[in-house]
Amino acid sequence: MAAKINAVIGQSGGPTAVINQSLVGVIEELHQHAEIGRILGAKYGVRGILSGDFAPLNHLSPDLLERVAQTPSSALGSTRDKPDEEYCRKLLESFQKHDVKYFFYIGGNDSADTARIVSDMALQTGYPLCVYHVPKTIDNDLRTTDHCPGYGSAARFVALAVLGDDLDNRSLKGVKIDVIMGRDAGWLTAASILARHEEDDGPHLIYVPEADFSDKKFLGDVESVYRRLGRCVVAVSEGIRYKAGDKNSLVADKAMRSGEVDAHGNKQLSGTGALGDYLAELVKKNLGAALQKKKDGKLRVRADTFGYLQRSFPTSASPTDAWEARLCGRMAAQYALGAPDGLASGSVAIRRTGDDPYKIDTFPTALGNVARQTKPLDPSYVVNGCDIHGDFKRYAGPLVGPLPIPGRLM
Amino acid sequence: MAAKINAVIGQSGGPTAVINQSLVGVIEELHQHAEIGRILGAKYGVRGILSGDFAPLNHLSPDLLERVAQTPSSALGSTRDKPDEEYCRKLLESFQKHDVKYFFYIGGNDSADTARIVSDMALQTGYPLCVYHVPKTIDNDLRTTDHCPGYGSAARFVALAVLGDDLDNRSLKGVKIDVIMGRDAGWLTAASILARHEEDDGPHLIYVPEADFSDKKFLGDVESVYRRLGRCVVAVSEGIRYKAGDKNSLVADKAMRSGEVDAHGNKQLSGTGALGDYLAELVKKNLGAALQKKKDGKLRVRADTFGYLQRSFPTSASPTDAWEARLCGRMAAQYALGAPDGLASGSVAIRRTGDDPYKIDTFPTALGNVARQTKPLDPSYVVNGCDIHGDFKRYAGPLVGPLPIPGRLM
Repeated sequence: MAAKINAVIGQSGGPTAVINQSLVGVIEELHQHAEIGRILGAKYGVRGILSGDFAPLNHLSPDLLERVAQTPSSALGSTRDKPDEEYCRKLLESFQKHDVKYFFYIGGNDSADTARIVSDMALQTGYPLCVYHVPKTIDNDLRTTDHCPGYGSAARFVALAVLGDDLDNRSLKGVKIDVIMGRDAGWLTAASILARHEEDDGPHLIYVPEADFSDKKFLGDVESVYRRLGRCVVAVSEGIRYKAGDKNSLVADKAMRSGEVDAHGNKQLSGTGALGDYLAELVKKNLGAALQKKKDGKLRVRADTFGYLQRSFPTSASPTDAWEARLCGRMAAQYALGAPDGLASGSVAIRRTGDDPYKIDTFPTALGNVARQTKPLDPSYVVNGCDIHGDFKRYAGPLVGPLPIPGRLM
Repeated sequence: MAAKINAVIGQSGGPTAVINQSLVGVIEELHQHAEIGRILGAKYGVRGILSGDFAPLNHLSPDLLERVAQTPSSALGSTRDKPDEEYCRKLLESFQKHDVKYFFYIGGNDSADTARIVSDMALQTGYPLCVYHVPKTIDNDLRTTDHCPGYGSAARFVALAVLGDDLDNRSLKGVKIDVIMGRDAGWLTAASILARHEEDDGPHLIYVPEADFSDKKFLGDVESVYRRLGRCVVAVSEGIRYKAGDKNSLVADKAMRSGEVDAHGNKQLSGTGALGDYLAELVKKNLGAALQKKKDGKLRVRADTFGYLQRSFPTSASPTDAWEARLCGRMAAQYALGAPDGLASGSVAIRRTGDDPYKIDTFPTALGNVARQTKPLDPSYVVNGCDIHGDFKRYAGPLVGPLPIPGRLM
């Protein structure tokens, strides 16, 4: 009887609310295949493979598996390591040492690239290895797939947060700026539009990295909304940029460099309130006098940066997203073990097959179709550089799930 | 037949997730009393009374009422106005003009004070007016009552947020600082301890305004936790203070005044990331080199300020809090209309009558017992100036409701 072959699963990059659904999906499917021996969880992504630090995943109780699936953040730990060729060579050595023939890597485009390099290297050296990437990112910026597991839940958090914040702003009027994750793509920020049921609901202005940002236009937009409604709720992506040509064109960079808010030494965008504070200060300085009301006194301007809650807040995962994340894990294992030639690396992609009712299926795609480059928000969704087209609700609505409809008395 | 008498309901101060439960509770109870004529909702609190801007609340459908009850933030709008005697005199004039004999004011200690002044003034002028205060604050700093409607839901949001953030920090290790609302009292920040199931769970450090803060001690605390666990999650109240003697002793003030983060002109603590950014910078500068690992590179330090989501996020209200907020609204109307001498102003307070199972009842109390002064966190809950005693879970647990227990693989 042939020796059983082993499988490694790892998680990489920023966690999501449903990344463990994918992990459990892979495990569940591997259990169906008698040829699989040990199922090893790489602790802290590729780092655990390098150091041989694995969690045994064969004999977990169904109850624990289900609880893990419903727990946000990466249960195996994660890493920001971006392996180079030398690093990948060592990964391959570890796989050989542990008789690993299947490697499942749950992550974004960087993880897909790592998967691609390792897979190519195995091919070149003649080591039989199947590397399967399971898509994961709250940014929704992976190519080929219609949307990405992790996005729906983060988008749900954002839509709920802006919906609640708009009600707050109705009650105590002023200018409110909400800073949303998304360094390169505006998918997550765009989802804030789902909070807008009625014409006067916030967010009244939405800024994404796909449209050039200008302080002057921003101030004009805010003033115009405020004069119309007596308040203004703004959703803004952490990755908004000034017009190209300037290499350091991130508004957040300017916010951190300026005398007003200190440079932090590195260019992290999340985990700091600098951009929100910069924009709030801009509004106060430039519109404070113009929009001040005699009766109300000072113009009320506040900024919140939603931060890591967007990817880790428990209990608000989108059911659709959770289900699809699990499915993508399962399908990765099916594609990997079902390939007719035995071992074909790839990634799982989602195809939308119906809008009403919403339906999807999955298909395998080459790692090169997902690795490295990202997918920006379709520019046709961006309106006047400061809003998102209503059509976006058709795209994002089913991924986010139903939202509460506020009861209003005025 | 005597003319029916009218009632006014208003909401004041920062909104909560359940403030509309109290509003609906008052309305429901008033419907039971045939002597009540018009039920008027004062738009934007006392401002609406001044200007005679009322929403009619008599004939709302049960369906709309229930949706309003479940909607966060003040459905009638709110105000930060703190009326002086002259302002209160005008309120009284408006009540006389609109034949109002009952005034229900849902708010915190400032609102209770307004209620007290108006009630006293009515007595002095011989105008028959009953003013009833319905307690509301996420800060939980009202005297007399065991706890305050609004607190349980905000505390639930905080506990969930820290629980998720701790899982995030397990997955990508570093120092994480979470800034929580509470200018004068640490009740809300203390609730973060509910996220701690296992000994190594965050939050590892908790700082409240009731204990003197020191940059040096804070750095020592963080270093000690980090050396033990390789990570550190900190919950810190926006109202933390340096040792008294310095009038401007708020750490947030220093953060906003310093060259690192600009002064915002006013002393708002929420709606800015300044305090979190200041503390993160402090850790980076002073511990960055000492705690840097060869392999991991730079020490990862991040700060999130939970901001207004704590009081307005939909779908995460505590069921117990929602029920009690409704009850307090109902009881305010019962106490007001059931007083043997016809008209006795007061406030509703909650008495805890059982811990296991948790039970409460309510009682009427004089406005003077709630107005103005606030109630700090009991100092016996504060441990070493940087943690909260486990007993606090017995106090806050039932108010917050059950939390998910993470499924862990390592």
